[in-house]
Amino acid sequence: MKSNLELVNDCDRFSPNSDPSFLYQFLINGYACPFGYLLESTVSTFSWPECWKLDHEQKTVKLLGSSLEERNKQVHNTLVAERDRGSFQILEGWTSEIFSVHGPHKEVVLSIPRVAAPLFGIVTYGVQLLAYQSDPGDRGFSIWIARRAKTKRRYPNMLDSTVGGSLPTGETPFECLVRESAEEASFSEELIRTRAKACGTVNYVFRTDERAGGELGLFTPEVQFTYEMELPKDVIPTPGDNEAEEITLMSIEQIKTALGKGEFTPAHGCIVLDFFIRHGILNFENEKDYIEIASRLHRTHGFPTA
Amino acid sequence: MKSNLELVNDCDRFSPNSDPSFLYQFLINGYACPFGYLLESTVSTFSWPECWKLDHEQKTVKLLGSSLEERNKQVHNTLVAERDRGSFQILEGWTSEIFSVHGPHKEVVLSIPRVAAPLFGIVTYGVQLLAYQSDPGDRGFSIWIARRAKTKRRYPNMLDSTVGGSLPTGETPFECLVRESAEEASFSEELIRTRAKACGTVNYVFRTDERAGGELGLFTPEVQFTYEMELPKDVIPTPGDNEAEEITLMSIEQIKTALGKGEFTPAHGCIVLDFFIRHGILNFENEKDYIEIASRLHRTHGFPTA
Repeated sequence: MKSNLELVNDCDRFSPNSDPSFLYQFLINGYACPFGYLLESTVSTFSWPECWKLDHEQKTVKLLGSSLEERNKQVHNTLVAERDRGSFQILEGWTSEIFSVHGPHKEVVLSIPRVAAPLFGIVTYGVQLLAYQSDPGDRGFSIWIARRAKTKRRYPNMLDSTVGGSLPTGETPFECLVRESAEEASFSEELIRTRAKACGTVNYVFRTDERAGGELGLFTPEVQFTYEMELPKDVIPTPGDNEAEEITLMSIEQIKTALGKGEFTPAHGCIVLDFFIRHGILNFENEKDYIEIASRLHRTHGFPTA
Repeated sequence: MKSNLELVNDCDRFSPNSDPSFLYQFLINGYACPFGYLLESTVSTFSWPECWKLDHEQKTVKLLGSSLEERNKQVHNTLVAERDRGSFQILEGWTSEIFSVHGPHKEVVLSIPRVAAPLFGIVTYGVQLLAYQSDPGDRGFSIWIARRAKTKRRYPNMLDSTVGGSLPTGETPFECLVRESAEEASFSEELIRTRAKACGTVNYVFRTDERAGGELGLFTPEVQFTYEMELPKDVIPTPGDNEAEEITLMSIEQIKTALGKGEFTPAHGCIVLDFFIRHGILNFENEKDYIEIASRLHRTHGFPTA
């Protein structure tokens, strides 16, 4: 059985006290702060065109474009070339989805194809909803837990939150939640707008592993906007697309067992632990690593965010 | 009007990205990790007896005792001598209260008089309870807010949580909450045991200011165990000791106004903001610094904790 702190470490794989000096910083011309981390192996695989400036002594990779439009085009062309060369396995999953990189004043400084985010180690965003039934007999709650489809590229068949998804450029977290909730659980727009409640963020720096597909050890700092929603007993979430195999009502004890067996994806294990902390299911008296877990789930990132 | 991020910065005054190299590290013989930070002015004011080893090059102050009992005696004698010499204003508030310092395996490695904690910059602990009434007409909640007594040494007359207190050595957070709730708000033990719910921690590194009394700029990293409790409308909290002037039911709008005017103590402003984040009163769509606030309130400390 994995301890809860092991579950956190399995997701937040580069703790705030880790030494980042072996990594290249991703810089953008005109900005003093870094925007992400690249592995040395990533830097040496790219055939950097002229719009990039590398400094192997300072370990920096700088994008030189002076406007958002120019930078977007430079990054897009660079990545298309690498995709066509077949340099990175991760680029084989290419989609039309775009992620935004934000500057110190939250302004968008770059848009980047979603699949390439882990190559540059930029902060990405998502939304996560746990829908629950109030259940006084069982620690107060039972939670609707999705099982990911067997056909998913990342973490097939593992347990997930009720609804979750990545935040694309141009959508606010709540509107993203409304859309994903309809797609993934067949929740009506009205249900989400009247019942879903924001509860903060869960932050971690994941590093890609076998189960995530593609290159190993890439940095993916993430901010997950968390939501919860009490569901009336007559509302049954139903998968509306092919993301989830099924969505099942699980008791707290069943969820604890599944966590301990590693049945949740690393990120969704943390989403559930955050719910447990917020609702007193885990507390100082019953969880030996309470202080560390409660703060690690909300760790700060060293980069500007949205 | 102060922004919510300004309120966080007013409490967490040494952000996780700050450079600690101007500070002395507090070390204990036999342990590799530091346990706190001392200002240079603190180091030069102490007349360190032989049980301490100073290294001005490495900027470390090491306690040499090899057992818990020996270390406790050494620290106690060192501090009594300074108190009698009148070296530090902060030691004038001497009480019998003791705080524990924890090691990497959460074991107690030292007990230290409470008043001296800021001199060594060790992590201290507290409990904070917000009792609320469910109020569908007003954003869902109104909260019982205490006003600190005019006679309090620290932050007299400012706004506070419903119940709060420091965690002394040997008491668990929940038992501390039961005791403080009876003392400060006349809540029955049964009420707290059946209704109060742990919701995580709020962490910050405060630095003492004029309103805190004593020396300025001392480091006080704190972990506050947060609790919330829905109160039936017929339960009215009443100050049971002389800590609070009054405890008043305030609407969310009234609390927001009081926060903006700086009427809460720095720490209790953060406790309220954490409640606002947890319950969706603040969210990404209405708070421009949402991501930073949601994570800073739970920042990690660089020291071992309980």
